[in-house]
Amino acid sequence: MIDDRLGRQVAFLIEADKLKAVMRRTTLVDRSRGENSAEHSWHLLLAAMVLRDHLATPCDLLRVLELLVVHDLVEIDAGDTFAYDRSAHATKAARETVAADRIFGLLPPEQAGRFRALWEEFEAAESIEARFANAVDRVQPLLQNAFSGGGSWSTHNVTRAQVLARMAPIEGSLPTVWPLVLEIVDAFSAVGMIRAEATEETERTG
Amino acid sequence: MIDDRLGRQVAFLIEADKLKAVMRRTTLVDRSRGENSAEHSWHLLLAAMVLRDHLATPCDLLRVLELLVVHDLVEIDAGDTFAYDRSAHATKAARETVAADRIFGLLPPEQAGRFRALWEEFEAAESIEARFANAVDRVQPLLQNAFSGGGSWSTHNVTRAQVLARMAPIEGSLPTVWPLVLEIVDAFSAVGMIRAEATEETERTG
Repeated sequence: MIDDRLGRQVAFLIEADKLKAVMRRTTLVDRSRGENSAEHSWHLLLAAMVLRDHLATPCDLLRVLELLVVHDLVEIDAGDTFAYDRSAHATKAARETVAADRIFGLLPPEQAGRFRALWEEFEAAESIEARFANAVDRVQPLLQNAFSGGGSWSTHNVTRAQVLARMAPIEGSLPTVWPLVLEIVDAFSAVGMIRAEATEETERTG
Repeated sequence: MIDDRLGRQVAFLIEADKLKAVMRRTTLVDRSRGENSAEHSWHLLLAAMVLRDHLATPCDLLRVLELLVVHDLVEIDAGDTFAYDRSAHATKAARETVAADRIFGLLPPEQAGRFRALWEEFEAAESIEARFANAVDRVQPLLQNAFSGGGSWSTHNVTRAQVLARMAPIEGSLPTVWPLVLEIVDAFSAVGMIRAEATEETERTG
């Protein structure tokens, strides 16, 4: 006979399987298919372990990894919100709060509170750990786009100013990685895959 | 100008993207497609965070998460070895050692050594952390199979004795989860999706 606590933990883990079906705008590097949020999350964990020695301020790596494991779970209900879609971003917080209530609520109560607090810490991006986690969540898609030949930048008509604003968390958290960001953005701007200026279309829809 | 250290780290992270294309024998819970090793790795990290309170002995969770992040990377070259394929297991260690040389060797030297040591620790399954990580690597596919209606057990003609031998690390590391393992194995044995005894075919090919 399985106790209720383990039963709730199993129900949560089975529900989490659905993150593997949430598709992002980025593709795999070989462009064979779109990337899903579960494998993206794993890639961020690996990136955090590799890039930690570029941190401006030392931090609690366990906390960083825990933030990254849970950071996209709300997308099971709320979907992935494309980084450059301004109208979707206007409703993102409300949609994700409802999703967090349901998804983390599957866990035993005290664990639900702890997991939800991790998600809220990531979203607030205030602690050193959350700022590093957010920086890694910018670096990986940047590399993914760059090494797949432009990816979601060129297909979604994104401007240089939009990309640099999106990448800003990297400058503060990983200063020695920032020159690489600028180098990539400059290279893709030079060939027109990142637009120099906003058109009316991108101004309106982000 | 990007320094060689960051250049190597980026090359490693781009190479790691290929783990998203390594397919396992398990499917997603909804059976819509096979599961890949990158999203499986993420699921193990989440399972470790959830199931840690069943640990027989407290351990270093950061170490566990680090072990799980890197544990399948060698599959980029060596492929996923099906748990119940005896002939493939005979060559697994040799294939994976060559893969580890190449893949971890992409990193800056001291980081390469550290990441390789994590993979070796996982494979040795001796430290408390590695035993917990290996137990989690048994629990998640068990749940995945159970909730997808039998999955890789029924399609690959696996016996009850084989499943229980494979699941053994759970009994020592997560004793309060073990009754659930027995309950699931019994239920799938009762309906014949896990075979009671080995046939000649399974004896030969595992």
